[in-house]
Amino acid sequence: MIATLGEILLRLTPQDNGMIQQMGTYHANFGGSEANVAISLANFKVPTRFISALPDNDLGKAASFELSKYKVDTHHIPMNGNKMGLYFVQQGSSIRKSKVIYDRENSSFAKLKPTGLDWNRVFVGVDWFHWSGITPALSDNCAKVCLEAVKRASDAGITISTDLNYRSTLWKYGKTPYDIMPELLERTTLMLGDPRSLETMTGIPNPFKGDIKEQLDKLPDYYDLVFKKFPNLKYISTSLRTIINDTHHKWMGVIYDGTKLYQSKEYDLYPLIDRVGGGDAFMAGLIYGVVKYDDPQRTIDFATAASGIKHTISGDFNLVSVDDVQDLLESGVGNISR
Amino acid sequence: MIATLGEILLRLTPQDNGMIQQMGTYHANFGGSEANVAISLANFKVPTRFISALPDNDLGKAASFELSKYKVDTHHIPMNGNKMGLYFVQQGSSIRKSKVIYDRENSSFAKLKPTGLDWNRVFVGVDWFHWSGITPALSDNCAKVCLEAVKRASDAGITISTDLNYRSTLWKYGKTPYDIMPELLERTTLMLGDPRSLETMTGIPNPFKGDIKEQLDKLPDYYDLVFKKFPNLKYISTSLRTIINDTHHKWMGVIYDGTKLYQSKEYDLYPLIDRVGGGDAFMAGLIYGVVKYDDPQRTIDFATAASGIKHTISGDFNLVSVDDVQDLLESGVGNISR
Amino acid sequence: MIATLGEILLRLTPQDNGMIQQMGTYHANFGGSEANVAISLANFKVPTRFISALPDNDLGKAASFELSKYKVDTHHIPMNGNKMGLYFVQQGSSIRKSKVIYDRENSSFAKLKPTGLDWNRVFVGVDWFHWSGITPALSDNCAKVCLEAVKRASDAGITISTDLNYRSTLWKYGKTPYDIMPELLERTTLMLGDPRSLETMTGIPNPFKGDIKEQLDKLPDYYDLVFKKFPNLKYISTSLRTIINDTHHKWMGVIYDGTKLYQSKEYDLYPLIDRVGGGDAFMAGLIYGVVKYDDPQRTIDFATAASGIKHTISGDFNLVSVDDVQDLLESGVGNISR
Amino acid sequence: MIATLGEILLRLTPQDNGMIQQMGTYHANFGGSEANVAISLANFKVPTRFISALPDNDLGKAASFELSKYKVDTHHIPMNGNKMGLYFVQQGSSIRKSKVIYDRENSSFAKLKPTGLDWNRVFVGVDWFHWSGITPALSDNCAKVCLEAVKRASDAGITISTDLNYRSTLWKYGKTPYDIMPELLERTTLMLGDPRSLETMTGIPNPFKGDIKEQLDKLPDYYDLVFKKFPNLKYISTSLRTIINDTHHKWMGVIYDGTKLYQSKEYDLYPLIDRVGGGDAFMAGLIYGVVKYDDPQRTIDFATAASGIKHTISGDFNLVSVDDVQDLLESGVGNISR
Amino acid sequence: MIATLGEILLRLTPQDNGMIQQMGTYHANFGGSEANVAISLANFKVPTRFISALPDNDLGKAASFELSKYKVDTHHIPMNGNKMGLYFVQQGSSIRKSKVIYDRENSSFAKLKPTGLDWNRVFVGVDWFHWSGITPALSDNCAKVCLEAVKRASDAGITISTDLNYRSTLWKYGKTPYDIMPELLERTTLMLGDPRSLETMTGIPNPFKGDIKEQLDKLPDYYDLVFKKFPNLKYISTSLRTIINDTHHKWMGVIYDGTKLYQSKEYDLYPLIDRVGGGDAFMAGLIYGVVKYDDPQRTIDFATAASGIKHTISGDFNLVSVDDVQDLLESGVGNISR
Amino acid sequence: MIATLGEILLRLTPQDNGMIQQMGTYHANFGGSEANVAISLANFKVPTRFISALPDNDLGKAASFELSKYKVDTHHIPMNGNKMGLYFVQQGSSIRKSKVIYDRENSSFAKLKPTGLDWNRVFVGVDWFHWSGITPALSDNCAKVCLEAVKRASDAGITISTDLNYRSTLWKYGKTPYDIMPELLERTTLMLGDPRSLETMTGIPNPFKGDIKEQLDKLPDYYDLVFKKFPNLKYISTSLRTIINDTHHKWMGVIYDGTKLYQSKEYDLYPLIDRVGGGDAFMAGLIYGVVKYDDPQRTIDFATAASGIKHTISGDFNLVSVDDVQDLLESGVGNISR
Repeated sequence: MIATLGEILLRLTPQDNGMIQQMGTYHANFGGSEANVAISLANFKVPTRFISALPDNDLGKAASFELSKYKVDTHHIPMNGNKMGLYFVQQGSSIRKSKVIYDRENSSFAKLKPTGLDWNRVFVGVDWFHWSGITPALSDNCAKVCLEAVKRASDAGITISTDLNYRSTLWKYGKTPYDIMPELLERTTLMLGDPRSLETMTGIPNPFKGDIKEQLDKLPDYYDLVFKKFPNLKYISTSLRTIINDTHHKWMGVIYDGTKLYQSKEYDLYPLIDRVGGGDAFMAGLIYGVVKYDDPQRTIDFATAASGIKHTISGDFNLVSVDDVQDLLESGVGNISR
Repeated sequence: MIATLGEILLRLTPQDNGMIQQMGTYHANFGGSEANVAISLANFKVPTRFISALPDNDLGKAASFELSKYKVDTHHIPMNGNKMGLYFVQQGSSIRKSKVIYDRENSSFAKLKPTGLDWNRVFVGVDWFHWSGITPALSDNCAKVCLEAVKRASDAGITISTDLNYRSTLWKYGKTPYDIMPELLERTTLMLGDPRSLETMTGIPNPFKGDIKEQLDKLPDYYDLVFKKFPNLKYISTSLRTIINDTHHKWMGVIYDGTKLYQSKEYDLYPLIDRVGGGDAFMAGLIYGVVKYDDPQRTIDFATAASGIKHTISGDFNLVSVDDVQDLLESGVGNISR
Repeated sequence: MIATLGEILLRLTPQDNGMIQQMGTYHANFGGSEANVAISLANFKVPTRFISALPDNDLGKAASFELSKYKVDTHHIPMNGNKMGLYFVQQGSSIRKSKVIYDRENSSFAKLKPTGLDWNRVFVGVDWFHWSGITPALSDNCAKVCLEAVKRASDAGITISTDLNYRSTLWKYGKTPYDIMPELLERTTLMLGDPRSLETMTGIPNPFKGDIKEQLDKLPDYYDLVFKKFPNLKYISTSLRTIINDTHHKWMGVIYDGTKLYQSKEYDLYPLIDRVGGGDAFMAGLIYGVVKYDDPQRTIDFATAASGIKHTISGDFNLVSVDDVQDLLESGVGNISR
Repeated sequence: MIATLGEILLRLTPQDNGMIQQMGTYHANFGGSEANVAISLANFKVPTRFISALPDNDLGKAASFELSKYKVDTHHIPMNGNKMGLYFVQQGSSIRKSKVIYDRENSSFAKLKPTGLDWNRVFVGVDWFHWSGITPALSDNCAKVCLEAVKRASDAGITISTDLNYRSTLWKYGKTPYDIMPELLERTTLMLGDPRSLETMTGIPNPFKGDIKEQLDKLPDYYDLVFKKFPNLKYISTSLRTIINDTHHKWMGVIYDGTKLYQSKEYDLYPLIDRVGGGDAFMAGLIYGVVKYDDPQRTIDFATAASGIKHTISGDFNLVSVDDVQDLLESGVGNISR
Repeated sequence: MIATLGEILLRLTPQDNGMIQQMGTYHANFGGSEANVAISLANFKVPTRFISALPDNDLGKAASFELSKYKVDTHHIPMNGNKMGLYFVQQGSSIRKSKVIYDRENSSFAKLKPTGLDWNRVFVGVDWFHWSGITPALSDNCAKVCLEAVKRASDAGITISTDLNYRSTLWKYGKTPYDIMPELLERTTLMLGDPRSLETMTGIPNPFKGDIKEQLDKLPDYYDLVFKKFPNLKYISTSLRTIINDTHHKWMGVIYDGTKLYQSKEYDLYPLIDRVGGGDAFMAGLIYGVVKYDDPQRTIDFATAASGIKHTISGDFNLVSVDDVQDLLESGVGNISR
Repeated sequence: MIATLGEILLRLTPQDNGMIQQMGTYHANFGGSEANVAISLANFKVPTRFISALPDNDLGKAASFELSKYKVDTHHIPMNGNKMGLYFVQQGSSIRKSKVIYDRENSSFAKLKPTGLDWNRVFVGVDWFHWSGITPALSDNCAKVCLEAVKRASDAGITISTDLNYRSTLWKYGKTPYDIMPELLERTTLMLGDPRSLETMTGIPNPFKGDIKEQLDKLPDYYDLVFKKFPNLKYISTSLRTIINDTHHKWMGVIYDGTKLYQSKEYDLYPLIDRVGGGDAFMAGLIYGVVKYDDPQRTIDFATAASGIKHTISGDFNLVSVDDVQDLLESGVGNISR
């Protein structure tokens, strides 16, 4: 079973690519980096657990229902407090950029303390644990919960993966990423991180000025420095997104195993339906690949294809099955299936 | 010009009487007691101003647009911070109760301080000022802003009205209504308050155990005590809502001028479309009546009819015109107008 | 085959009982008294034809499609000009009245002249012709078309029915009903008309001051005067609507055959979904009854039940079948059918 | 854990009380008597399992997700074949009746054979088993699966409940209820059945001609005959629905324990939002009451209140919690909760 | 008059490119290859008749209404049985493929027997008859109905067209296309068929391995073999679809008259709105062209342009007029017309 | 303050790119060239006034509310008559063209006479006045109102801008553009006009046969002739739209100051969401640029970028802020902002 730890948020999205100021009706669903990873893995038929906290009200209940729907285990989500974290997504189009407004401060999860979880049971049956850089960025409490989880998972011999997920608008509670992340990352085996985030969060100087995609041959040298600093690491990966416009992206991924940089095909994604959660779908694909294939090339191909399709699905969650991904990998974009 | 002070909130309502846990789509609009009063008065063609604070983001902008739409002056709404107060309304039906979840702590308005408003300009051109018991219930800051406003308005010779609007789920910042309200109420001329709220907020013992409607003849005695405590008072009024079920209410109003209790007709409201804001529409009707008619019977008739219609309009705002209200008062519920 | 003559209009209705000023989305469908009669009869499996005029654009095409959908013959609808008649329906609720805004002046139908129809073919195969008092109220052209139709139908031995349908907001082109209607009504066999409309349109003084329903015994005396003035008449009928509120009506019908007043059961209609077209459904039921049953009691029972159900169907059209009506007449409102 | 056996169907409902022939958009969700019981119990926080069969396609997957969402165990739902059972619900209003069109023949569940389930695991952990008269009515296969389940549950000492759920439009595969039901019912402890269904399904002559509610004192005598025929029985219950019109029902329940007839309060349900699943919610309430309270009065009060609220919730499922039901029982229909 | 024979199905499409498992709301409309051809021709102002069978319920009625709406004659559609054929369309986007789930077994049409139609009247007034390879693929009954129709049409001197429409997921009742199709095709004058379908259905070996578009010069040789086997043939045509991704296709057509291969312009279709029915729109365009123009180049230009526009219209039906097609052919994609 | 004069119309747009004949639901909002300019400027935080006329009904009220929402002053919009101008927009897609149907004849604005405005107050506080060639094209009244406005503005020393906005389907009241426009244009300082419109409206022969974009070097010579004829002119500008298909345009702009032609970047707009109002957004950008920057290059860059983004926003209005435009100019289409 794979466990992920993080916050799941209510997501409010104006219908039909509308702007927030146009009001009208909003789609209400849920999302959050680590929940997205869990749900995508569950859709790949991998048993998953989501560790979190939710408010004790109908919004919290709805979030829990949504996780259960996708067969994610919700037994380790204490329900306390009354503030659901939420965010508004204003989807752009063409030359108009998408925008997100977060409203997650003081949420039930942000107030979760290490004592709020039953550590004796949280990791029972778990053999892979995933966390992201968003959790320690939320609050001092959350950073402590994350550290406790990482230590306990590590002690229990559980493999650990991390998505650096650097967001400059978080980290507002007085700590910098560099204060917190290096210790957390020590136990990570599979890391998702682009050079810029790596520099910010680990302090290893980032040699890339321009477009990384054009200098991929330099990436192994930089990743070697990361491997050196974090000897438990087996893989570092990053997705490479080229933004033609808000509705048209190019998408590929690379993974480095300390020896060689493996590179996927690049997908031309247009029209994009929903890019939020694309990186999380990539993370889920990486974990799936590492667990199932033990082959970096198959892993990066799988992760990139799976997350590519995610961009065509509305909502944060990747709803595709392993068969859907294999079909794209083997047959390309084929004709309507009927 | 009539100015009201308070918070306007984003309101999220599941479509088609849905439950929050059913998700899907939510109507997004705005509401808040004092904004509702201002907008209802604006729809009666009375010049109005709304004094408040909003976050400096697209949600705050949308709220400001919504007020402007109804010709409410928004020049005294500083835009600071990033937290929009919001609430979720789960509309009930028949024997299923409606429910509201608030998420307004730490909002831009809750953090507004007296220094955040330009007092030299806030009341320019204003001859009536309205506030409600919600504002001092939100935060220590808000109580101070409210007191400052009441004092300045009073000093400027502005008539003051107050809706007690007691909400037990607010007042969480350490003060009780009784700590705050008596001082605030000293300058009020027109008060909307049922005996239970009056007792809680002013400490004057409430003599009513059962249904007030059945003991209306006792109400003047109680209200006399209130008049005694607050010598600036000219009118106390209360609406009387009888809940048959969540979709069927009976609705009437009374007003006391220190001498006589004037009573409106009782309306049979079924099916109710949206009761949120019904009390605010009543308040707006009272203010309109006192300003325009100087006749307690006409005032209470107008206020009750206007707010009765409000219950048939979705959203917090009363969108009816004075003509619409007169038509109901004069002709009753007539045939389709074509 | 039954032919009806009149205007079909685009109907725009704000969704979810919204008010026009709330904008958002509007349902777009079609309606118009005589088209409603034709479609209701077609749903009773009676062959029907609609005689009209439509603009030569996509709105006209859509209107024609809508009539065809219900198997109404559209071959006698010339498509000229560019103005679709339209109307906005603001549906009320409870104590809030419904409102209609018409925008039909200068429409293709209002400009239709007698030369615009192919009179040699219009009535081929027709044995019943229906018109209403709306058509001559629209324009001088329309009054002439109506008169031409009535004369030709009469000359061809076709039975004629008329719904007086008095609307004070029409008749704006310089003629009064009394200038036009008496000549038109001379050939009518089945007339739908309440005393007030009869007085306005025929000049026969209306003896009813209060509620007709309470003085039904006096109705035959008045109707006898009408029979006297219009010797071709066989039946006069009227529906009796009691408005409790905008969502709750009581509904019954009476028919007089010159001898006896037959009276239907009274239906309690709540909640009403859409009352527009209710009278037209009643008219269609009368025609159906007269044609099929030759029994005034069965006719008035059928017409009242059929039009009662119409009030529960959104849009102008009565979509029920004869079986649906029979089921209500025989079993009352029964359990869900599954 | 409570297990229920039956078919879950895709339900398609035209939006906004529309008629099927109006097309447009349909709400797509799921329902089915025994699934409804399981989900209602899960919402009461009772662990539940649903035993069924679903097609191996995206519709089957969606049905499984929907069950999981409400924390119902779906491990015993083999996914085979390609035909999802489905039904269309045309919701009526006022004097227009609701209608259901079923399309469930040859579905994956109708083709399920006793060998299709893993009987060694189906009842592990289960202490209550519920089935309804719909399953044996679907096909010969289903009748056999039902019998197998009843025998195995009984042999394992599991308490059994049954909702007779007689539907005359089913039972089309050559067997009559009387061929099948008596054997199946032998092991039932709690039975939901009105006298008419009991007569049809068990052959015990039904003494009731008119309205049962008016002759409740005669019910024990009849039920005594049922107790005699089925000695394992402990309770027979029935709901009593009085249909004022399609949007207005009265609703009460009774339960008989072999000694005394316990009777709930009668609820006035208007406006009804969705009556489909109301009986299943009552069944779930009965099971909950019997399991938790061991008090027939509390049981019938709980079941009737819970299922009363269900009628105000769109979709088949009862989404209320035990607290919601208690609140109605203790406080009646109260004011908006905020 | 042009008659087409086939099944019309209820089509259910999740809104907003949603996935079936996301549920919510589905668009409900109708489609089916031969009905699509009839409706497209009717929109070109050609009189058309649809020969079929529908269930005797509200779904069947709605389907009949939909055909009538577009002025298609529905007098030869017996209404029997209770199973509406239906299908679900999950629209893809970009690199996610569209998917269709059919549920049409045992439908009223699949059970239609040759004795179910009134052959003496079916072809009265008809001068062109169109069928497709879907009908004989549905059931033994349907194959017999199709053969009867082809023989009778042929005997009556009616021109026959056929769309091979090979679907591997049909043909499940024990016969292969090769058992049935050759005899049916003997009387066809205009055939729509790509080489792969031709090989499967007629047994004439398909010489094309790769992309047909790149080897168009070889197509006449292959089509000559088809002409040889079916001497009544005058034209074979095929559309050529290049799938860039699910939202972006290229589209052209060719037609062979036994002498020369005529080729249309290629259209770049992005974004696609709905590709289902694109081939049927092409077929309708071919029939229109052959009937009206007697010029293979104009025919193929018209058919390709008309069906190209179809891809931008939601639903199966091509709603464009001849003028719309001419405008595209003459002016290209021009500016907004206002 | 910038004042604009013109008509605001109700805009009805079928949802989801539907065709008018598909009916269903229509978005209801507002638009009109000069109102669009005012609202776009208001969104750039420029004080604006809209001078117009509206019907005295709920549609007129809704239009006034919409203008107020965006902080546009509505005090100079008399409310008379009962005909709201309106238009239907059928949005195309890919190779299907968009279509507009206007219904604005005899509207309240078309009937506005010079005496209908309070000229002593209309221009108080105004320093820029904008009108477009649509107004004098509507009716003789409107041409007179326009001339009166231009003269009074000019006399008051107000700067005047004009968008030629030539529409061949207007000008139906007996005057040609050349009869009216030259006199009106004499006082214009900033003119938006492509060569073709300039020729039609001013009579200066248009030298451009093919694509203007390919002959931009010739444009100054032509514009010099215009400067010569209208000596008050300081700038002529035009946008250059290249239509790839209905969903994909290229967009750039040029401005000439009598000396040099300044040229913006060209934007690739796909997918387009709503092109209606794109030119008005460009006009607003020009005015903003001229007022704020006094730099033709910055002006044309700003106007083109602002109006480019408009094409991605549904409805006529440009809702972007100056910051949004600057962000596009400085950073290009960047990543999601969160």
